[in-house]
Amino acid sequence: MRIPAHIGIIPDGNRRWAVSNGMSKEKGYATGLEPGLAVFKLCEQIGVKEITYYGFTTDNNKRPMTQRQAFTDACVNAVKLLSGENASLLVVGNNESKMFPEELSSYTTRRAFGKGGIKVNFLVNYGWEWDLGHLAAAGTGAYRKNIITGMKSNAISRIDLIIRWGGRRRLSGFLPVQSIYADFYVVDEYWPDFKPEHFYQALDWYDKQDITLGG
Amino acid sequence: MRIPAHIGIIPDGNRRWAVSNGMSKEKGYATGLEPGLAVFKLCEQIGVKEITYYGFTTDNNKRPMTQRQAFTDACVNAVKLLSGENASLLVVGNNESKMFPEELSSYTTRRAFGKGGIKVNFLVNYGWEWDLGHLAAAGTGAYRKNIITGMKSNAISRIDLIIRWGGRRRLSGFLPVQSIYADFYVVDEYWPDFKPEHFYQALDWYDKQDITLGG
Repeated sequence: MRIPAHIGIIPDGNRRWAVSNGMSKEKGYATGLEPGLAVFKLCEQIGVKEITYYGFTTDNNKRPMTQRQAFTDACVNAVKLLSGENASLLVVGNNESKMFPEELSSYTTRRAFGKGGIKVNFLVNYGWEWDLGHLAAAGTGAYRKNIITGMKSNAISRIDLIIRWGGRRRLSGFLPVQSIYADFYVVDEYWPDFKPEHFYQALDWYDKQDITLGG
Repeated sequence: MRIPAHIGIIPDGNRRWAVSNGMSKEKGYATGLEPGLAVFKLCEQIGVKEITYYGFTTDNNKRPMTQRQAFTDACVNAVKLLSGENASLLVVGNNESKMFPEELSSYTTRRAFGKGGIKVNFLVNYGWEWDLGHLAAAGTGAYRKNIITGMKSNAISRIDLIIRWGGRRRLSGFLPVQSIYADFYVVDEYWPDFKPEHFYQALDWYDKQDITLGG
């Protein structure tokens, strides 16, 4: 079986899950922690080299304060949880903004935890315009390498497979350049209803795709 | 019914269609002309404001010469065909390269045909790195407007709905910035097997999506 080197995870549907379970929207985020760890362990087992989790975005900050607080806490706790594993962790996002949780400042350069291992990237207060907006500074040109070097997310490699939970079929600003050739698999269930089968189904589907990189 | 203002069309599967019909791969492209015109007319009927067709990319140029010739001819003929309609036509792509067909040079600034009308963009010898690689020149910053102004495709607006024929669930370099919030609908049939139902199904599905722009 062809295993993707790099998987992107869009853990969507937390609020809809909360509402459909009779809770207020912000209660949906904490339930996303366990699935996040489960996906990490599945990736570890099958030999994935890199995972990127979509935490929250600068767009998401337009939401009500109780929700902002809840998704920020969930991200902080998720990163802490993953730092208990064998992983090489990096948080990528605009940490010059007040919306960036201070507790994650020490993760903005990559650090190995445990025995190191899978690269795990966590997007926190990430914005595509923040990511692309400083290409000028790097002295770019129409070459892939230059573009990638000039991006704020330059430590994150090309993504092979994106799995999005919660049924939406869109990228919503997730790493536009690294996602250019990614195969995109959508799980209809909400992220808090994560089951290992979702992951295996995505891998089975990915195994049947041809990889052309546009060629 | 909520009608998308801007639809992106990825007309994939021409080569697979040809092979599955006992022809050599390059024979698949010419059959894409009629569907292209059909989609245009459907968009016109329902009041879409802008359409972008994915013609061919700098990545595609790696293919054998007979195929290159065939997809280039198909693009030239498609643009000519559309210039017989009421449309405001623009070809976007690297026209400083030998791979850009000379016959389309006069379309690289937008021109109205007939009574004008829908904006129609046609990506010809387009490359995402060509598009993003000159952001520096525009003096950018981390603001959406600056990024879009600095892109080569700056005359193309944000896309609401992307429809891809041929079953692949990926963007393959299609306008990474304009596609950031686009809803992505995949038709399993090959592009030469286009049926109006595919288009209507995509619209029905789009009508059920919520539009958050990441918020």
